[in-house]
Amino acid sequence: MKNILVIGAGRSATALINYILKQAQENAWFVTVADADPELAAQKVNNHPCGRSTWLDVMKVNDRKDLIERADVVVSLLPAHLHLEVAHDCIRLNKHLITASYVSKEMYRLGDEARNRELIFMGEMGLDPGIDHMSAKQKIDEIIEKGGKLTSFRSYTGGLIAPESDDNPWHYKFTWNPRNVVLAGQGTAQYLENGKYKYIPYNRLFRQYRIIKVKDMGEFEVYANRDSLLYRDVYGLSDIPNILRGTIRYAGFCDAWNALIKIGLTDGSYPILESKDLTYHSLMEAYLGPNEGTGSVRERIAEFLGETPYSPVMRKLDWLGLFRNKRIGMERATPALILENLLLDKWKLKEDDKDMIIMRHEFEYELEGKKKELHSTLVLKGSNSIDTAMAKLVGVPMGIFAKLVMQGKITAKGVNIPVMKEVYDPVLEELKEHGVIFKEEEFDL
Amino acid sequence: MKNILVIGAGRSATALINYILKQAQENAWFVTVADADPELAAQKVNNHPCGRSTWLDVMKVNDRKDLIERADVVVSLLPAHLHLEVAHDCIRLNKHLITASYVSKEMYRLGDEARNRELIFMGEMGLDPGIDHMSAKQKIDEIIEKGGKLTSFRSYTGGLIAPESDDNPWHYKFTWNPRNVVLAGQGTAQYLENGKYKYIPYNRLFRQYRIIKVKDMGEFEVYANRDSLLYRDVYGLSDIPNILRGTIRYAGFCDAWNALIKIGLTDGSYPILESKDLTYHSLMEAYLGPNEGTGSVRERIAEFLGETPYSPVMRKLDWLGLFRNKRIGMERATPALILENLLLDKWKLKEDDKDMIIMRHEFEYELEGKKKELHSTLVLKGSNSIDTAMAKLVGVPMGIFAKLVMQGKITAKGVNIPVMKEVYDPVLEELKEHGVIFKEEEFDL
Repeated sequence: MKNILVIGAGRSATALINYILKQAQENAWFVTVADADPELAAQKVNNHPCGRSTWLDVMKVNDRKDLIERADVVVSLLPAHLHLEVAHDCIRLNKHLITASYVSKEMYRLGDEARNRELIFMGEMGLDPGIDHMSAKQKIDEIIEKGGKLTSFRSYTGGLIAPESDDNPWHYKFTWNPRNVVLAGQGTAQYLENGKYKYIPYNRLFRQYRIIKVKDMGEFEVYANRDSLLYRDVYGLSDIPNILRGTIRYAGFCDAWNALIKIGLTDGSYPILESKDLTYHSLMEAYLGPNEGTGSVRERIAEFLGETPYSPVMRKLDWLGLFRNKRIGMERATPALILENLLLDKWKLKEDDKDMIIMRHEFEYELEGKKKELHSTLVLKGSNSIDTAMAKLVGVPMGIFAKLVMQGKITAKGVNIPVMKEVYDPVLEELKEHGVIFKEEEFDL
Repeated sequence: MKNILVIGAGRSATALINYILKQAQENAWFVTVADADPELAAQKVNNHPCGRSTWLDVMKVNDRKDLIERADVVVSLLPAHLHLEVAHDCIRLNKHLITASYVSKEMYRLGDEARNRELIFMGEMGLDPGIDHMSAKQKIDEIIEKGGKLTSFRSYTGGLIAPESDDNPWHYKFTWNPRNVVLAGQGTAQYLENGKYKYIPYNRLFRQYRIIKVKDMGEFEVYANRDSLLYRDVYGLSDIPNILRGTIRYAGFCDAWNALIKIGLTDGSYPILESKDLTYHSLMEAYLGPNEGTGSVRERIAEFLGETPYSPVMRKLDWLGLFRNKRIGMERATPALILENLLLDKWKLKEDDKDMIIMRHEFEYELEGKKKELHSTLVLKGSNSIDTAMAKLVGVPMGIFAKLVMQGKITAKGVNIPVMKEVYDPVLEELKEHGVIFKEEEFDL
């Protein structure tokens, strides 16, 4: 009997494990779910006849190897920095490996060894990165195949709250790693516009957003990702003069987030020594410079930000409670940690809240002398705070790919991301059953 | 015969080694200077009868231990992260240790062990930190002893270029670690004003500078250091309502440096993927957003910065060559590294250039019902680009302290910084012979 090992049974694993267990039943495979929390793993397997759960401390090398040795395919949902240990085991024990994480340089260095052993190590096999690669590359290959020449590729993704569950002035709730949301964009965003490189430093990133319209959904804001230039070669777009990747937020988010950056609340590099003794109000006061007016702390912050007292930005800061005399109560916390802790409470999904994924690709190309623009847009909502669209779209692609590997349908070897036809065609086809349907609009330019 | 071991013979070691060799001759001690570059070490010892030089790869544990074992006092001029290895050896082998670096948490943890073995590990024994601690604490203790109550302590230091060698519009040249100058201030500066905490994030640090006047020297700018709150307890000022440490620059520096921050050139966290292909001009163009005017790149940068085309800030950017079509020629460099590389050339000391240290303490205190303000100011110039005031004031205090330890005049044990009378009195007294003379001005408030 063939075996699939899933390492990690956390929140994001449910959709994947359910999918894999179902496939196991149809194909007479067996699934082992390993986690540091054995109860969590047991709960996810839920006495399924084709599955078992087990306790695993991933740092215990021998336990880890024992489990990997008995598998044919390993799916790792571990934090990104732990994949490499698993990857080394997979090399030694001749096992295929699938993750949804960005492929690190160290992982790419295992490419030759994996290829020599006829293994596939597939990374970035989730939503973003994952479905974005597959859906974009499928369309790019289509355009090129029919003789088109791509002149612009822009690709945006947002993990959002569905309009029916949107009940706060930020129009945002956490559906993924809160820390990453708070620290998002630090560094320098890089992209290409009209053949010229463009750099946006963090201090301007949330001011230089662009607006997109999504049919039946209205306008959204997009800020640039750091990594737009990275995928030109793997997408086969080495010479394209316009390329941009970005993150989607509801209208109004970026201006307000920029205010938090300007105040200084997203700095994660140094702890505030006295954070335990402060209230949010005194924290805001402490950020005021000597030239920021004379009124209340709230008025002076508004003046410093260049906002009127009841502007949309100020109302968002109010709603967070930044001007309240409530104690922060965290010892020597960085501003970013203080902010994250505050947002965790404010931006928490309620039980019945539905999340929403929006993914939008915008292609411009020339075909037979005509200039065309093609928009391809996915909008998918989750069911509730457990069965989120986010968890489904991160997990199910890995599950489908694991199935294809088990069935011997994948010829690619080595360390890869999902940009090859033999991967994106069947995975995207099956994802349609899960609601992953891109709507297209085409215009003449 | 008693032995002193000096590890590191680089640029900043000359003044220290010369001082120690002279003391060795007078006291019949012997000095060993160890460096990864044996020729450099030999050159510094210069066949002195009381010294020898030797090759040391500090990562070779046994070689390092052999040298340390033969010493009574070890002076480490290694990069800060390497002190800890040496400190562990000093614990095992019962040796005193002296450095000019900030004392890390890990180093402080060795305090009990050092104390149990009756050893002194003295850190922050250079200029800043070092002479700043000693001169401030001496004055603070004096004020307290005569019954004064301190209400404010501000302390500023600048490693500058002397006016007679100042020949560029930034009025700055490198006299210390260029990387630290480029990355200075990243994080959140913290200080106390009228009993309230004040935080300045990096994006405002170089806008919120203050002005000080130095007698016969004119006006200077001061921006806040990150660490003002750290020394309250060791200075005996736990309840002081005003405390601020800062860095001194010539007038005009901060506005121009703030322009570099705003553009994005001080980001050291992410490489510019295409940096090799760019010129400085194209780099500046790449930083321009979509709403920054329509003229030349230089005009659009001026507009973005809110500067007129020939403002002092724009002239400083011109002088750096940021609008020239010269290739950067660095592969995948961060903006901060590109800037550092450019400045290395522009801000290099000429052979005969003199540097200048300014240190200023400002104390406010109440004595017998009267409010007083005391300014204590050091201005010291170097001789040329080799014999800098910086190297002298970093090195000689360690030398003097090493002598005091060798002579058995130090009773303090454990991990310390130089804030005790038995240290600051003799060290400051001897430093006077080296030109370290603070001038005082007192005012009634």
